[in-house]
Amino acid sequence: MENFPGKIAIMGGGSWATALAKIVLSNQPEMNWYMRRQEVIEEFKQAKHNPSYLSAVTFDTERIHFSTDINEIVDRSDLLIFATPSPFFKNHLKQLRVPLRDKTILSAIKGLVPDENMLITDYLAECYQVSLDRLAVIAGPCHAEEVALGRLSYLTLACKDLDRARALAPIFTNDFMRTSCSRDVRGMEYASVLKNIYAIVAGICHGMKYGDNFQAVFISNAIKEMQRFLGSAHTLPRDISDSAYLGDLLVTAYSRYSRNRTFGSMIGKGYSVKTAQLEMEMIAEGYYGAKCIYEINERYQVDMPILDTLYAILYERQSPQAVIRRMTETFK
Amino acid sequence: MENFPGKIAIMGGGSWATALAKIVLSNQPEMNWYMRRQEVIEEFKQAKHNPSYLSAVTFDTERIHFSTDINEIVDRSDLLIFATPSPFFKNHLKQLRVPLRDKTILSAIKGLVPDENMLITDYLAECYQVSLDRLAVIAGPCHAEEVALGRLSYLTLACKDLDRARALAPIFTNDFMRTSCSRDVRGMEYASVLKNIYAIVAGICHGMKYGDNFQAVFISNAIKEMQRFLGSAHTLPRDISDSAYLGDLLVTAYSRYSRNRTFGSMIGKGYSVKTAQLEMEMIAEGYYGAKCIYEINERYQVDMPILDTLYAILYERQSPQAVIRRMTETFK
Repeated sequence: MENFPGKIAIMGGGSWATALAKIVLSNQPEMNWYMRRQEVIEEFKQAKHNPSYLSAVTFDTERIHFSTDINEIVDRSDLLIFATPSPFFKNHLKQLRVPLRDKTILSAIKGLVPDENMLITDYLAECYQVSLDRLAVIAGPCHAEEVALGRLSYLTLACKDLDRARALAPIFTNDFMRTSCSRDVRGMEYASVLKNIYAIVAGICHGMKYGDNFQAVFISNAIKEMQRFLGSAHTLPRDISDSAYLGDLLVTAYSRYSRNRTFGSMIGKGYSVKTAQLEMEMIAEGYYGAKCIYEINERYQVDMPILDTLYAILYERQSPQAVIRRMTETFK
Repeated sequence: MENFPGKIAIMGGGSWATALAKIVLSNQPEMNWYMRRQEVIEEFKQAKHNPSYLSAVTFDTERIHFSTDINEIVDRSDLLIFATPSPFFKNHLKQLRVPLRDKTILSAIKGLVPDENMLITDYLAECYQVSLDRLAVIAGPCHAEEVALGRLSYLTLACKDLDRARALAPIFTNDFMRTSCSRDVRGMEYASVLKNIYAIVAGICHGMKYGDNFQAVFISNAIKEMQRFLGSAHTLPRDISDSAYLGDLLVTAYSRYSRNRTFGSMIGKGYSVKTAQLEMEMIAEGYYGAKCIYEINERYQVDMPILDTLYAILYERQSPQAVIRRMTETFK
């Protein structure tokens, strides 16, 4: 891996992409940045910050090469860090004419490829011939808002090729970021979808006035459900208490920054699913994740009372009161 | 176990004792209640609620036999539920002339016997000849304040004799309480001490402005530290994600009701340990627990960076800034 990582690109213009860009530029002299809309790039260059997300974080824009042309960015980069929302990922890639197979790709996407019910890395391997050794994911209990504030945070990088993960780690390590490495690519990808699902349900229960005692029991049962699912979907030794699994679930399910929890809380308070979605400005990714994992689990048949509860509320329009009550009967 | 549980007594007058009494009386026609101070009993009888704790919870005092005489209460009871603060436990027992050996004893005490560094159940077995089959503990993520509000909560009853735990469970089961059973008496006792220790450190970090991302990583590392200690101190198969371990840690470390967390938070904000103690009206049990477990761990030599950090702050008067920073370097 000579000259690794080479030229780095951030793919996407949201808050997580912006936080990752800030970390990258704390270590690297320059980077490329793919964004969809030219007017956002213009505003960014003028204001020296992302006009839409984490606007308090300023950038030295001289060190950033922006473009709305995904082919240009991919062509001039060796390491691509994808941080687009999962529902738009496929559409971005559709414009590609440059091959991906000789790139290193790091997915920071928390979600699955919609319609396909595939993990991001599996999709890239299958549809774009990227070898699994070149595919990595980054996860961890890491709200972009706190990264922006420079608050000490931890990430985990997973790659089948552990040496590649280790080579990537310094890019995400600075005074306020620590990064550790793992081989559990699929486990971490599934975990980052599941935690959004659990955060919505935590929010629903909160909205329905279940208290702190219950919330703690909920998390215990959620992490056990996650462990059961990962144990079936991707057999690999892992400690579910690691921060990439438990920590990420906690920060999403407990934190005021979590849009999944907020979305759930509105449903718990009596908003319809439709109204709650309209009221939210950002997409609650767990909404899509619930459907994907529910369908994937038809293959594994893992006992997942929390997932089933959310699916019943979101997609079968069952009454939250009744199904949540039934879910609590399965807890201990 | 004919006529089990027989006559029930609550031992202690604090908030957890009061919450447990409320649960017991939701199932049982009557109970005995040992409290230290006669004037509290008089006030209780007149006001129909505990004058000092959970005063919103009213009681049908006709169904309660109060006494300040521990011998009288023990003599007329078959099941003793101890919920005194751990620092005073030994002194209460010193007044005993009635034997305990034919009683069933349920400890709801979160702490160790001070000076002795012994678990409550071990102390009762060794000094009062109660057989381990008759000794049970109750634990769970269960703030008394939420029990008082009738919010759905979960408890775990542990006894070496699992049938006895199962026979006790209905006493703690009602519309808003669920109870499950376990054999892991010592594991649950140690866990309930450790969680207070971790809640203090969580509070210290919060007071020092570490954020939500860090808090989640902290909990991940704390539950792993707990698992390591329990694995050495009491070998028994257990799932550390169960609500009696992880759930109890969460409710204590995250909740605004936790006095251990509040105590830590004051230290993190710069109060001296002494001042923080004076400002707190209730005892932060983790303060004593840290010393006990630190000394017990001299035997086991388990890697416990969080415990060591708290011990250094509380008992070696080291600067929180420096030792907390060092602790964060061990996390991942």
